[in-house]
Amino acid sequence: MSLLHDTLDAIPTPDLAAAAETQRRLDGKTKPPGSLGRLEELACTLASIRGTAELGMPRKALVVMAGDHGVADEGVSAFPQAVTAQMVLNFARGGAGINVLARRTGARVVVVDMGVKERLPPMAEVRSVRIGPGTRNAALGPAMTGDEVVRALEAGISLAAELAAEGVDLIGIGEMGIANSTSASALTAAFTGASPADVTGRGTGIDDARHAHKISVVERMLRANPVDARDGLRTLANLGGFEIAGMAGVVLGAAARRIPVLTDGFIATAATLAAVRISPRARYAVIASHQSVEGGHGHLLRALEARPLLDLGLRLGEGTGAALAMALVDAAVSVLREMATFESAGVSGASASGRGTGA
Amino acid sequence: MSLLHDTLDAIPTPDLAAAAETQRRLDGKTKPPGSLGRLEELACTLASIRGTAELGMPRKALVVMAGDHGVADEGVSAFPQAVTAQMVLNFARGGAGINVLARRTGARVVVVDMGVKERLPPMAEVRSVRIGPGTRNAALGPAMTGDEVVRALEAGISLAAELAAEGVDLIGIGEMGIANSTSASALTAAFTGASPADVTGRGTGIDDARHAHKISVVERMLRANPVDARDGLRTLANLGGFEIAGMAGVVLGAAARRIPVLTDGFIATAATLAAVRISPRARYAVIASHQSVEGGHGHLLRALEARPLLDLGLRLGEGTGAALAMALVDAAVSVLREMATFESAGVSGASASGRGTGA
Repeated sequence: MSLLHDTLDAIPTPDLAAAAETQRRLDGKTKPPGSLGRLEELACTLASIRGTAELGMPRKALVVMAGDHGVADEGVSAFPQAVTAQMVLNFARGGAGINVLARRTGARVVVVDMGVKERLPPMAEVRSVRIGPGTRNAALGPAMTGDEVVRALEAGISLAAELAAEGVDLIGIGEMGIANSTSASALTAAFTGASPADVTGRGTGIDDARHAHKISVVERMLRANPVDARDGLRTLANLGGFEIAGMAGVVLGAAARRIPVLTDGFIATAATLAAVRISPRARYAVIASHQSVEGGHGHLLRALEARPLLDLGLRLGEGTGAALAMALVDAAVSVLREMATFESAGVSGASASGRGTGA
Repeated sequence: MSLLHDTLDAIPTPDLAAAAETQRRLDGKTKPPGSLGRLEELACTLASIRGTAELGMPRKALVVMAGDHGVADEGVSAFPQAVTAQMVLNFARGGAGINVLARRTGARVVVVDMGVKERLPPMAEVRSVRIGPGTRNAALGPAMTGDEVVRALEAGISLAAELAAEGVDLIGIGEMGIANSTSASALTAAFTGASPADVTGRGTGIDDARHAHKISVVERMLRANPVDARDGLRTLANLGGFEIAGMAGVVLGAAARRIPVLTDGFIATAATLAAVRISPRARYAVIASHQSVEGGHGHLLRALEARPLLDLGLRLGEGTGAALAMALVDAAVSVLREMATFESAGVSGASASGRGTGA
């Protein structure tokens, strides 16, 4: 059997007993039941993923995957393709948004070159996977071959396994790749059935004319790759990117190891939905970090039946939303671990006319 | 002149030049302009309050004020009044939700007994201000005298001054007080003109019958105290509480010293609106931390023209939402201080068809 198939077979179901035990413990804390709202939900979700109510403080990694896209040839981005490689160097030097926010939350940043067009100098800070020098132009035919997409997925799976072995138990995913919001738009249209106009946004920031052109490019991508979207793997190969498939692999690998995965914005969430279309069971390990301003993101979140934790008008990617949401994960776990109970603190409970559960 | 009047006279206007300089610096960072959304807005707001674009990492305090309410005699809460004092002891021992979340964000917790009914033992961890053993029952007449409300406000002003002198430059406010959501509902109805039914929620969690009773108590409070709500000070005295007036004083004192104040939920935001009705200029220093599930909170936020940073279904109070929002303040300042610029990182900018500003 292949690594991919073994991983899909290994994905478990959520531990609902651990979630219920977590809620029971939270209900004994010195606060009205349910009054910490989504922090309580988050603690229960974490327990259901980890398979225990004995949650430790998370050991965190942010996996930032970079790749170039052949469809950049169609002139869909405001930025030149060279920016992908330049930003990988910026990640390596610690100067990008994700580096700053990861430091704030105490997360390690793992930068992966999944297939940047320009060959980068070897650097200790960047893992070189390089499935190829960017994908093919998906407006003309499949972006990746069947072999390439499996290699990219398995690179993500292997990385999740490696991080798990090192003790990481919370993974955020993020990306960089000029034109990858075009790829994510095509995946979103294919997976959700929404129209290209509804799911194609302005990415890094483009004017009206280029936005109209970008929508027409997404339409061409869908025409050039007429595949049944129920075939998640083939749809991902046709319309995705190396970094998108790599992130999907991280989701699958984390799900197989009961590690919660924080999605990020539009592109990372497209990767997450691709993973869930390949294995619906993987959904249990996914936590949506934030609502992006990119219009297609809402379609993806609805398809995942996920409600994001934050809504801060972000549209940077890189894992920045996932990094910010990690502070909420820490908060949720701290509440479970550290808050006093009514009993331990000698605080009186609610009277009979209290609602009991504040759900 | 009195401390209160001197403080009101000292409240400055926001420094719009510092905000503009902050946005200019953010636009040079390695990201599409505006792509960090509300983090960028937050950095600019902080600069306008502090009066400089040279923001340091915040030194934070959470001021948690406790007080009892005579209106608790009307049976409006699910919890017995003794819980106010019990929770102050819990704050002092570090076991409450606010202690846990403040530790996560590196904020000092300053607990103030503004007037708890039961006399507490002297404790190093609790400042004793004690305007009185709880307010009078506002369903029968004014909760506080004119002298009491000024003493409570000035205690908050003095505390803000003391914290400022110690180098604190970010203050969150929070509270504890059985029945204080009833007081906040009455203040909200008086200040915004909304009906008691629209602004009276379930507080710590009460059933339908007690909720209907609570609305009728708020109606009685308004009938017993028929005052023009443009008189912020008198309305606060009539319908507020010692801890609510104390928090209003912290807002005024912080505003006078260019210190940003993070509001918390329904009750802390009622205190904030009271402060702003006493001095509209104080609004510039206020940052709304979160949207509570308590229905009246939205009315207060609209009256303040404030958009909260978080929406996590919280209804605990104590400053817990303010504590969570502090992580976003840290993130915003870190981005401004630490991110590389396009120039320093050698990253190419957007082409002419990029939108330029991503606002």
